[in-house]
Amino acid sequence: TIAAPAIAQTMPEVKWRLASSFPKSLDTIYGGGEVLAKRVAEATDGKFQIRVFAGGEIVPGLQVLDAVQNGTVECGHTVSYYYVGKDATFGFDASMPFGTNARQQNSWLYHGGGLQLMRDFFKTYNIMNFPGGNTGTQMGGWFRKEIKTVEDLKGLKFRIGGYAGKVLTKLGVVPQQIAGGDIYPALEKGTIDAAEWVGPYDDEKLGFNKVAPYYYYPGWWEGGPNVSVLVNLNEWAKLPKHYQAVFESACAETNMDMLTKYDVLNPPALKRLIGAGTQLRPFSKDIMVACYHAAQETYAEEAAKNPAFKKVFDHWTAFIAEQHSWFRVAEAGFDSFMMYGLPKK
Amino acid sequence: TIAAPAIAQTMPEVKWRLASSFPKSLDTIYGGGEVLAKRVAEATDGKFQIRVFAGGEIVPGLQVLDAVQNGTVECGHTVSYYYVGKDATFGFDASMPFGTNARQQNSWLYHGGGLQLMRDFFKTYNIMNFPGGNTGTQMGGWFRKEIKTVEDLKGLKFRIGGYAGKVLTKLGVVPQQIAGGDIYPALEKGTIDAAEWVGPYDDEKLGFNKVAPYYYYPGWWEGGPNVSVLVNLNEWAKLPKHYQAVFESACAETNMDMLTKYDVLNPPALKRLIGAGTQLRPFSKDIMVACYHAAQETYAEEAAKNPAFKKVFDHWTAFIAEQHSWFRVAEAGFDSFMMYGLPKK
Repeated sequence: TIAAPAIAQTMPEVKWRLASSFPKSLDTIYGGGEVLAKRVAEATDGKFQIRVFAGGEIVPGLQVLDAVQNGTVECGHTVSYYYVGKDATFGFDASMPFGTNARQQNSWLYHGGGLQLMRDFFKTYNIMNFPGGNTGTQMGGWFRKEIKTVEDLKGLKFRIGGYAGKVLTKLGVVPQQIAGGDIYPALEKGTIDAAEWVGPYDDEKLGFNKVAPYYYYPGWWEGGPNVSVLVNLNEWAKLPKHYQAVFESACAETNMDMLTKYDVLNPPALKRLIGAGTQLRPFSKDIMVACYHAAQETYAEEAAKNPAFKKVFDHWTAFIAEQHSWFRVAEAGFDSFMMYGLPKK
Repeated sequence: TIAAPAIAQTMPEVKWRLASSFPKSLDTIYGGGEVLAKRVAEATDGKFQIRVFAGGEIVPGLQVLDAVQNGTVECGHTVSYYYVGKDATFGFDASMPFGTNARQQNSWLYHGGGLQLMRDFFKTYNIMNFPGGNTGTQMGGWFRKEIKTVEDLKGLKFRIGGYAGKVLTKLGVVPQQIAGGDIYPALEKGTIDAAEWVGPYDDEKLGFNKVAPYYYYPGWWEGGPNVSVLVNLNEWAKLPKHYQAVFESACAETNMDMLTKYDVLNPPALKRLIGAGTQLRPFSKDIMVACYHAAQETYAEEAAKNPAFKKVFDHWTAFIAEQHSWFRVAEAGFDSFMMYGLPKK
């Protein structure tokens, strides 16, 4: 018949595998992959199925980019700053020190020109990237001792990943790369002095509060990290146009969904942690300024030797400055009154 | 044949009309309806078509709810606080004075329990509501004269809509209901003393800066107004499940899209306005506190006589307080350093 091929053409069966960088225990960030897969299946009447694999099931969590690039999986869910060792330019797709908050990262990507810049870069890895989640500003981590001055950073063994570790070495910190499950015993034994992970809800699960009393903020290296969906370009090209549309829409929905989930889960988790004895501490102004200068030095060194990095960095820097010229007005005016200006009850 | 009906069942042709509350000139907020329609068509291979009508084309902009309720159109794109005259409870779906910012409004709706509460309420109007856009914190409006004290509000003829007007009457303001196109001449002639609209990008188009020099912030009545997609429940029930999924996903994408578009367009518009002589002014702390108390009085009066309102108000109030307990930490710590703590260049 003529009709049968027409059905096949309109709604073909497609099966993809998604490699997540995250363990199933993180229902927030690992959960994003499942939100995406569920929506894509629902929107295609079950014809486009994406099976989600946790970090380590197909490839280790930090090799998702490679697995997508070489076609081991059709797509992945990861944070692009895991790959700054290949090229620091990847970091801008996720978060870089003293950069954007979640809303600004989305604005830069979707309408500020950032997504096109990043896609031009990802294309050289045979990958298309989609914003697909955000944690909001992360915490600065768990410290066994108080850190009051820039001097206190010297020799500090700090479990911290990616580009921020590089920045902190300028201030004498000794960054440690330790997988999530191994952080607790290292912090307990004192093999490390401090560790950063995500924020209250995720951190509470790993129990860091039991072995390190001081919980610092903000995580200036992650003002609003975007979690990306990466798709192999050959596989993308094989999708019918309307499956591409379903997928892209579901990525944007997943992005919104993850941040709003974190925002609902973090406040009660922070309360529980404080109730159990955690001491909240802001990084001192001196420390923040020293870290800011260390970041700018690191950026300047990278930009001098990496034209791809410089191109994105210049665009991103100008965008952030312009954002603040507006956020300082209505947004900050409203937020600061709501947070600090309300009459006491 | 057997195959032909199978095609029809999988991807039936559906044609909907969407009544927008907004004029085509507002590419930001009217544009949201078009973003939604385009994505739904793309994701269904052109089978589910939504035609977008500007405010006034089918029904006046402020009657979209009625048109969706009675089935004149299948769906609409509007701001629910337009309907506080019917029931003040509608306001929570959009924004209420001294409430949420954009991110908190989304968190409350998607994961905080707010959407279910609002859907229970909308159901009594035979409507299902979907978050579908946000402007971010709006500006406080354009004033012909400076407003320095609470006393200066007395007798002020202020073009301001909805619930905020009701709040401001407690401080002696005389709220004026004037459609967008009629504001400019009224402000020019001095028939009104002040007018609020949206924010820099939208306001600039209407030219208010030419007839009122003072541009106040923040619009405490709209910390992050959600723009809603309203769907007639009978029409919703007729959609195949996968079209429902496509539609819901596209609404979430539209929500993200509109806010990020505003965030990219507002900063340069604000710069242009200031360059052309606009004087930025924050509402004084005294004025903010007086308005806050007036809002709480208004809420208490409404809650005493409207159980539906009280139910949502209590939930929303508790949610906001909890949000601030977390936003004060990492988010505000990061944002305030990025806005005010950076070393001068």
